[in-house]
Amino acid sequence: MNRQELFEQIQKKSSYLCVGLDTDIEKIPEHLLSEEDPLFTFNKQIIDATADYAVAYKPNIAFYEAHGISGWQSLQKTIDYIPKDIFIVADAKRGDIGNTSKMYAKAFFEQMNCDSITVAPYMGEDSVKPFLAFPDKWVILLALTSNAGGKDFQNLELAQGGDVYEEVLRKSQEWGSHDQLMYVVGATRAEALINIRKIVPEHFLLVPGVGAQGGSLEEVSKHGMNSTCGLLVNSSRGIIYADKSVNFATVAGQKARELQQEMAGYLDNYL
Amino acid sequence: MNRQELFEQIQKKSSYLCVGLDTDIEKIPEHLLSEEDPLFTFNKQIIDATADYAVAYKPNIAFYEAHGISGWQSLQKTIDYIPKDIFIVADAKRGDIGNTSKMYAKAFFEQMNCDSITVAPYMGEDSVKPFLAFPDKWVILLALTSNAGGKDFQNLELAQGGDVYEEVLRKSQEWGSHDQLMYVVGATRAEALINIRKIVPEHFLLVPGVGAQGGSLEEVSKHGMNSTCGLLVNSSRGIIYADKSVNFATVAGQKARELQQEMAGYLDNYL
Repeated sequence: MNRQELFEQIQKKSSYLCVGLDTDIEKIPEHLLSEEDPLFTFNKQIIDATADYAVAYKPNIAFYEAHGISGWQSLQKTIDYIPKDIFIVADAKRGDIGNTSKMYAKAFFEQMNCDSITVAPYMGEDSVKPFLAFPDKWVILLALTSNAGGKDFQNLELAQGGDVYEEVLRKSQEWGSHDQLMYVVGATRAEALINIRKIVPEHFLLVPGVGAQGGSLEEVSKHGMNSTCGLLVNSSRGIIYADKSVNFATVAGQKARELQQEMAGYLDNYL
Repeated sequence: MNRQELFEQIQKKSSYLCVGLDTDIEKIPEHLLSEEDPLFTFNKQIIDATADYAVAYKPNIAFYEAHGISGWQSLQKTIDYIPKDIFIVADAKRGDIGNTSKMYAKAFFEQMNCDSITVAPYMGEDSVKPFLAFPDKWVILLALTSNAGGKDFQNLELAQGGDVYEEVLRKSQEWGSHDQLMYVVGATRAEALINIRKIVPEHFLLVPGVGAQGGSLEEVSKHGMNSTCGLLVNSSRGIIYADKSVNFATVAGQKARELQQEMAGYLDNYL
């Protein structure tokens, strides 16, 4: 999916919601555990209930890998089930030397047919570029993450001025344009968005941390939105685990709709 | 496998060789392509031929993931086939927020029963610590990598003094001891080993980049060895793709033996 198509979906649904599929066998409703494939059954019902309000789904690959081969089967079925007009983020945090990154790109772009993959920047240019060789596929590069440990290295001040994460934003723009490159910016650090928008005014930002991690959707929207929205705001636990009864999917749909309606207001105000 | 057991294997085999299983369907001998599981058949023969000379195997997870579910099956069979007294490195370059890193740890330590996993440091403490909760399992943290792009961020100079990679070495020592934490240091930057050994004198270092990437085994051994060897030197392409005929495994065994014999000399000289 290209940038224009993504923006059209955002306008059509009045939403920039990304639903995180962090599907944990220990957290899904008990009545699903007798199903042949509980992870996929859960995801299928979540997708059915939220697809009208979401422009993206973000399966967190770790939660599937933890089950070995059966987990990969659940993941593949989930990705195949997501409607074709919804953007898919493989939240995989990959990145390695060139020939290896090319293999990861094949895994997620060709085998799995995802639209994008999250990539860690530590190994630099030749670890990121192989992903950018696939037309209409996206790299979502970690810049400023929402977790406590994000500060350990991302906020180190450089001798040349600025922090490490700012150099990641600057340097990576030499590798690909805003038609193929997005950044992960945690919502728990919304104040940094003002600064980040000075460095990457045109890029889409994937923003986790709203909800369970405590970030404010209003702050993120106010400081982060640009002329093509430029935001995908993720919520995982706040939607998919909002209810653990047989009604879990209905409640997930309600939670997604609440976020979508709040977003519709911000799109009116800030776009 | 704990540190003492690893050192005993090194002494027993007079070797600190790690064989990288970057098993690429496009590079393995043609006569294997008609096998039911070409990747595993190749690995099995490589392991049979090199197990006397290697103390570690390092499957590069991307090369298996690129084949989807069948690739994971090949990987699992490979790991199950590796003799129990040989250290297994899952070269996966993972790392994410705490609950996600815990899932990756389960995947590679419990599902796959690997001894260690390579981890990217960008997300800091809470992305690394979940891996350290597993007794006798190891994190191998990226510090200074052998690829060209390694310089983009790892060698940025900090306002507080030193480079980013040095702060990774320093800070991460607060999270775990040298009984559970190793570092990736590329052989192509052997001159940096003198400096690195001042910061992490006791830790094991996983050193890729000898062979195809041009690093010198002698330089690495001279500057990197400590009182428990402290080195795992990886060779992938130089061993597994040394020959593409039906004799590939025999030649791989010879190449591994050559490296082992060179290592035996350095153990005599520098240990």
